[in-house]
Amino acid sequence: MEGWPIWIVDQYIEKFLQEDVGVGDLTTQGIGKFVEQTIRADIVAKQEGVMAGGQFALRVFTFLDREVKGEIVVQDGAFFRPREVLMRLSGNAAAILTGERTALNLLQRLSGIATRTREMVNLVEDLGVKIADTRKTTPGLRAFEKYAVRCGGGINHRLGLYDCVLIKDNHIMLCGSLQKAIREVRSRIPFTAKIVVECANVSQVREALEERVDVIMLDNMGLEDIKQAVRMAKGRAIIEASGNVGPHNVRLIAEQGVDIISSGYITHHASWIDMSLEIEDQNGL
Amino acid sequence: MEGWPIWIVDQYIEKFLQEDVGVGDLTTQGIGKFVEQTIRADIVAKQEGVMAGGQFALRVFTFLDREVKGEIVVQDGAFFRPREVLMRLSGNAAAILTGERTALNLLQRLSGIATRTREMVNLVEDLGVKIADTRKTTPGLRAFEKYAVRCGGGINHRLGLYDCVLIKDNHIMLCGSLQKAIREVRSRIPFTAKIVVECANVSQVREALEERVDVIMLDNMGLEDIKQAVRMAKGRAIIEASGNVGPHNVRLIAEQGVDIISSGYITHHASWIDMSLEIEDQNGL
Amino acid sequence: MEGWPIWIVDQYIEKFLQEDVGVGDLTTQGIGKFVEQTIRADIVAKQEGVMAGGQFALRVFTFLDREVKGEIVVQDGAFFRPREVLMRLSGNAAAILTGERTALNLLQRLSGIATRTREMVNLVEDLGVKIADTRKTTPGLRAFEKYAVRCGGGINHRLGLYDCVLIKDNHIMLCGSLQKAIREVRSRIPFTAKIVVECANVSQVREALEERVDVIMLDNMGLEDIKQAVRMAKGRAIIEASGNVGPHNVRLIAEQGVDIISSGYITHHASWIDMSLEIEDQNGL
Amino acid sequence: MEGWPIWIVDQYIEKFLQEDVGVGDLTTQGIGKFVEQTIRADIVAKQEGVMAGGQFALRVFTFLDREVKGEIVVQDGAFFRPREVLMRLSGNAAAILTGERTALNLLQRLSGIATRTREMVNLVEDLGVKIADTRKTTPGLRAFEKYAVRCGGGINHRLGLYDCVLIKDNHIMLCGSLQKAIREVRSRIPFTAKIVVECANVSQVREALEERVDVIMLDNMGLEDIKQAVRMAKGRAIIEASGNVGPHNVRLIAEQGVDIISSGYITHHASWIDMSLEIEDQNGL
Amino acid sequence: MEGWPIWIVDQYIEKFLQEDVGVGDLTTQGIGKFVEQTIRADIVAKQEGVMAGGQFALRVFTFLDREVKGEIVVQDGAFFRPREVLMRLSGNAAAILTGERTALNLLQRLSGIATRTREMVNLVEDLGVKIADTRKTTPGLRAFEKYAVRCGGGINHRLGLYDCVLIKDNHIMLCGSLQKAIREVRSRIPFTAKIVVECANVSQVREALEERVDVIMLDNMGLEDIKQAVRMAKGRAIIEASGNVGPHNVRLIAEQGVDIISSGYITHHASWIDMSLEIEDQNGL
Amino acid sequence: MEGWPIWIVDQYIEKFLQEDVGVGDLTTQGIGKFVEQTIRADIVAKQEGVMAGGQFALRVFTFLDREVKGEIVVQDGAFFRPREVLMRLSGNAAAILTGERTALNLLQRLSGIATRTREMVNLVEDLGVKIADTRKTTPGLRAFEKYAVRCGGGINHRLGLYDCVLIKDNHIMLCGSLQKAIREVRSRIPFTAKIVVECANVSQVREALEERVDVIMLDNMGLEDIKQAVRMAKGRAIIEASGNVGPHNVRLIAEQGVDIISSGYITHHASWIDMSLEIEDQNGL
Repeated sequence: MEGWPIWIVDQYIEKFLQEDVGVGDLTTQGIGKFVEQTIRADIVAKQEGVMAGGQFALRVFTFLDREVKGEIVVQDGAFFRPREVLMRLSGNAAAILTGERTALNLLQRLSGIATRTREMVNLVEDLGVKIADTRKTTPGLRAFEKYAVRCGGGINHRLGLYDCVLIKDNHIMLCGSLQKAIREVRSRIPFTAKIVVECANVSQVREALEERVDVIMLDNMGLEDIKQAVRMAKGRAIIEASGNVGPHNVRLIAEQGVDIISSGYITHHASWIDMSLEIEDQNGL
Repeated sequence: MEGWPIWIVDQYIEKFLQEDVGVGDLTTQGIGKFVEQTIRADIVAKQEGVMAGGQFALRVFTFLDREVKGEIVVQDGAFFRPREVLMRLSGNAAAILTGERTALNLLQRLSGIATRTREMVNLVEDLGVKIADTRKTTPGLRAFEKYAVRCGGGINHRLGLYDCVLIKDNHIMLCGSLQKAIREVRSRIPFTAKIVVECANVSQVREALEERVDVIMLDNMGLEDIKQAVRMAKGRAIIEASGNVGPHNVRLIAEQGVDIISSGYITHHASWIDMSLEIEDQNGL
Repeated sequence: MEGWPIWIVDQYIEKFLQEDVGVGDLTTQGIGKFVEQTIRADIVAKQEGVMAGGQFALRVFTFLDREVKGEIVVQDGAFFRPREVLMRLSGNAAAILTGERTALNLLQRLSGIATRTREMVNLVEDLGVKIADTRKTTPGLRAFEKYAVRCGGGINHRLGLYDCVLIKDNHIMLCGSLQKAIREVRSRIPFTAKIVVECANVSQVREALEERVDVIMLDNMGLEDIKQAVRMAKGRAIIEASGNVGPHNVRLIAEQGVDIISSGYITHHASWIDMSLEIEDQNGL
Repeated sequence: MEGWPIWIVDQYIEKFLQEDVGVGDLTTQGIGKFVEQTIRADIVAKQEGVMAGGQFALRVFTFLDREVKGEIVVQDGAFFRPREVLMRLSGNAAAILTGERTALNLLQRLSGIATRTREMVNLVEDLGVKIADTRKTTPGLRAFEKYAVRCGGGINHRLGLYDCVLIKDNHIMLCGSLQKAIREVRSRIPFTAKIVVECANVSQVREALEERVDVIMLDNMGLEDIKQAVRMAKGRAIIEASGNVGPHNVRLIAEQGVDIISSGYITHHASWIDMSLEIEDQNGL
Repeated sequence: MEGWPIWIVDQYIEKFLQEDVGVGDLTTQGIGKFVEQTIRADIVAKQEGVMAGGQFALRVFTFLDREVKGEIVVQDGAFFRPREVLMRLSGNAAAILTGERTALNLLQRLSGIATRTREMVNLVEDLGVKIADTRKTTPGLRAFEKYAVRCGGGINHRLGLYDCVLIKDNHIMLCGSLQKAIREVRSRIPFTAKIVVECANVSQVREALEERVDVIMLDNMGLEDIKQAVRMAKGRAIIEASGNVGPHNVRLIAEQGVDIISSGYITHHASWIDMSLEIEDQNGL
Repeated sequence: MEGWPIWIVDQYIEKFLQEDVGVGDLTTQGIGKFVEQTIRADIVAKQEGVMAGGQFALRVFTFLDREVKGEIVVQDGAFFRPREVLMRLSGNAAAILTGERTALNLLQRLSGIATRTREMVNLVEDLGVKIADTRKTTPGLRAFEKYAVRCGGGINHRLGLYDCVLIKDNHIMLCGSLQKAIREVRSRIPFTAKIVVECANVSQVREALEERVDVIMLDNMGLEDIKQAVRMAKGRAIIEASGNVGPHNVRLIAEQGVDIISSGYITHHASWIDMSLEIEDQNGL
């Protein structure tokens, strides 16, 4: 899981299962001894897409029963076609049936994000421009969704309010000026934190550059202004474009020379990729 | 919050804020005394849609600071237009700025679901057919997403694996027959729990009716088969149609006379409704 | 554990142990190296009864030390006599001594409930009437106590306020009429939830039947009224009798033809079954 | 609540409510606006007994809604008669109906223990002998149940394994001798912890006295042996009798001159005291 | 509390109190009604020092009882002398006595760190060099201890492993070269995270500068090497010196022109500042 | 870990790691496949001292990855010299690098306490006087710090407010007299809890002895008064001296004949013992 300690993953999975299973899976418990069989099952794509979260989905099953075996066929970040087998499972039927929905919900949502991200990345990759995510993620699922963005070829913006400063129009208004806001913040935050400043126009870009900020985020600026900002800033700060970015305009923005384009669209307009868990018919053997 | 005890809501909100705020909002803390101002702010729609989660969004702010005042202008379930003010806030700038993203993420996601649900409901409402949700919800957010479905005019299917039995093809295969599966389950579950059986064809419908199940879920059946199933079952069980339901086919299915159509589409294909939090310019006073 | 995922069981056991062990078992820690011996121990009945919770009791020990081995001699639901060995343990003395009280408290309480339930079930079983539990369970222990009821041959009523509707006199009074209460509720709850209505007299039974509720609970009604209600309702709803049921009157009620009799007595008047953990004298070998 | 910080009480009450309410009280939420009425309700005894847990029961309601008002009519420790009003409540119907069962379950269980304890205390009080509880309490509820024992006039034995040493036969066997067990323990535990030693005969009592232990627990000893042990030990250690104590023999044991008699009977053989919550008929006004 | 949302503070305080209070403060509860008096108390310094954590200490008392009133006399960051009153409290004796130790432990530890930090800051402040903390903080208390460093005039290094990259000798060894380590990391981390590289010699400094890292941490380098590194890097990266820094050498290092000196000494060699809580003698009035 | 159930240890370690690792160790994750190597590493002392917490430090690594192997070279309680290897580790580099700081922070702090305690113990051991700790421990870390005191040869005073009564001047003032305070408390607390009384002068000692308390704590009394108190009390209660004890006066106090000297100094004036984790150079093989 790309270096995620397993105990962090398990904290999430326990919560997710608790939500679905509550005091017990009535149906699975209800069929009694029949559910104690060992079965084989495949997770199969029903749409094309980019894989994300395979290890998490698999962990849902092994969390329920350490004896479940799983083989991830399509690795995170890889492209898959309809009807492709993504993961093979074998083990106790109870664990597989109880975990099915939670595992699929996670895998479908994350692969949806990876797929949407990959679409955007493909539009600008040759220009050397990166697609970054935002904090517009589903409450409670951010770490997973940001991971899915990376699976789709995107990069991550700050993880939360705690690991990077982002000075926006509202902060500037409260402080009275962009310069003042930056200086106030700099006097208090860890020196190890970057400062990003959201600029609405070229004159703010100039002001921010003078304060030697780390990243300048051009917020909803026109193409001409973006180009000018890039010219001014290049080499002195990372230039990030943001605001209403979608497949229709991402390449145009990229062509202005920005370093990074951040996009809420890749998370909040990602639909789930259709998948299903198919149990091998035991009688067919 | 429609009867939700506040302590349950607060458990969620604390988790959501923890994810975003971590050990502190660097930017807000960074501007020091300037953030101690009292400000006024509006949450404004940037797209049309159906409101859902107003009380939850408001609670994010009052959770951060009990002194924040909020007025919900558009009630949950109501339709709104672009540029309409959905909620008015006033209070400590720190609480409003720190809570902004979490509140919006929640409100935008939930309103997205309510809006998608309302679209589906509108297509069949005159036929007396209900649209129900599924368990295809974002991990960790089910209670909220099911609430949003109700805001959009839909009804709820079971909440999890614990409050209703749903016998699917896999359970039937494990037990050997539909009849056997039903009888096994009935001998073990609380007598207060309904039994839903997923049927793939008319002969399974007949078998299920003989076992007097509460709900028959027609899974991906053709229109002719649906009509026949309805004829057989009407009055003896609730008839639910399910499987690949979307705006393109929901009315056709509804016209066959089913009671309920359940749809994962209203949750997993809901995009966020665009909204923003706009702070009143203090200087403009 | 009858389909209970182990992680749910462990959440409870951790809490129970935490209550007893706190920051450490002073006595066990106090005897130092002597407690590192491997010992064998039996859990022995000192009274007759019906077994319930064997797997949970065993898990207390293996939770403390994965190396403890246990063999459950008397299975849940089985009858045992005084001096019968219920479970055999072997392993680290520290784990066995530290877990002893928690394991026994759980096993004695649950077996007490199973025993009391079995007494009631025996009185009516030949009539085809089921004994169900209520929500009158020890706070924090409901899932276990409801499991014990099943071990004693009883069935479960709803698990909590969340998985079934039960309309009582107070709800009816607030709404103005039984009919109104039912209709209000039906418009809001998941369609997968059953509706139980508590009726105090025959005329309420008639009203409830007209609204096609799932279960009619006859609350403290006289035998004649019960008989009449059964006649009216049979086949149209499940008939449950409730209120001050005990060994003295359960058969009389059952003879009126009800389907189910629910009883708080089996939980709140269950005494613990006496048991002890006996360590084999090592010197005796 | 006799000095219990409110946050500790709330941790328990949140857990208890969570168990019963889960994701919501379907019935209460189902009747919609009707549940928003302000009502008055009484908790009424249906049996005589000794009150315990009034403040905890009341807190269940105020935890659900801070606006609920409650007046405790019968204080903890006081005797009440059938039909006596124990507590008066007024407030939001939703909070009162949702909290009803949890509050009553707690109050009935605790009053059951207080009542059973009082019965035992009455049998020996004039002899100056105290009745103490044991660790035979319901898992998860010990602090409450020990409080109920005090309400019934009893005293508390150790709270758990962490606050007092109790050397039993098994510890002695592991160490080889009583003397060795005591000395091992004494070298490791906080000097602020008392040492209790369970003795099975007079010669062990002598050995324990030589080691200057704080309490000697006479385990299942005959009356003559108890008398002899008391003579030997009086003034040098607290003498506690234990083992199969009940109403039938408690006075006989007390008459031998012991200081304290500890009894599992007062907790594990306590039945609930019957009570109900009665809502005032609004129409009757 | 400098922008810390109160709910974060309360999570910590609940844990701290739980550790000390457990199931209850025996002494406070033991004196019964006497503890219900309203008292006044002062927290008084018994040594000179720099204040840190006043709001946290006060919150311990108001967490226990919302009615306790407190006035912070010496603000965080201010210097105080022996016998100076730091905080005045009035309210319920139970809350003040139960909270005393937890509040003092926190305040004494944090003021100890602030005092030690201030000593170091004073030695180099005129040179424009900042003193930063490290991750050498007491497990579980980092956020508080880093706050205390700021109270003492220091600045914060990264908060944890999650908000900044720090490439050390071990990472370099694993990757094969400093350049490779930096490039690997840069391809995976959020672009909003700074990269700090620990350099052991001047040639590593050169390599790191070529990779345009944000901060160069000179690890245990000699004064001459530090001077040379500063000359090379100045203006291209922040220069931080680290390793065995103490009052004996901090100024020497500072004189070489580094921007920041990070010091574990200010946290792990901070002794508590002696303080006590003094209750006003009521009889003296 | 001297009888500590592993699950208690793991609760702490999870919290400590969570604080440091948060959503992930950016650097370790950032170097990608390179971190998947198996490495060997030693924890090495850089100062002399007394070991404490070896098992806890090791558990940090095995908590992160069950496959990490560790050998504790210097046992808890043993003395070590500079450059001595304290522990050898081998396993996944990711687990070792991510756990390094948390493990060291714990080990250095605890060994610091054990070392300081040993210094004090050495000064009085030959007189048969014990050194005990106090409740002046770091919030959240008490159980560990009290364990470290035992490693240094000290003994433990009460663990918290819940396991022993300590009547102080403030309690006496509230009750009106020392006698009254003792009697009030005795009527309410578990009979298994000891009563310690803090005495400021000889006359209070006399009063406390008359009430037959278990421990008399002489608070900041002069040497002459201590001697007199000892004479009066010896054999009737444990005599503990307390208040501003340090290396300068501990022997003088001990010489007066007290049983125990309790000292906050050993915890709040303990500095960390310097240690480092050194990874074996793989290339050097």
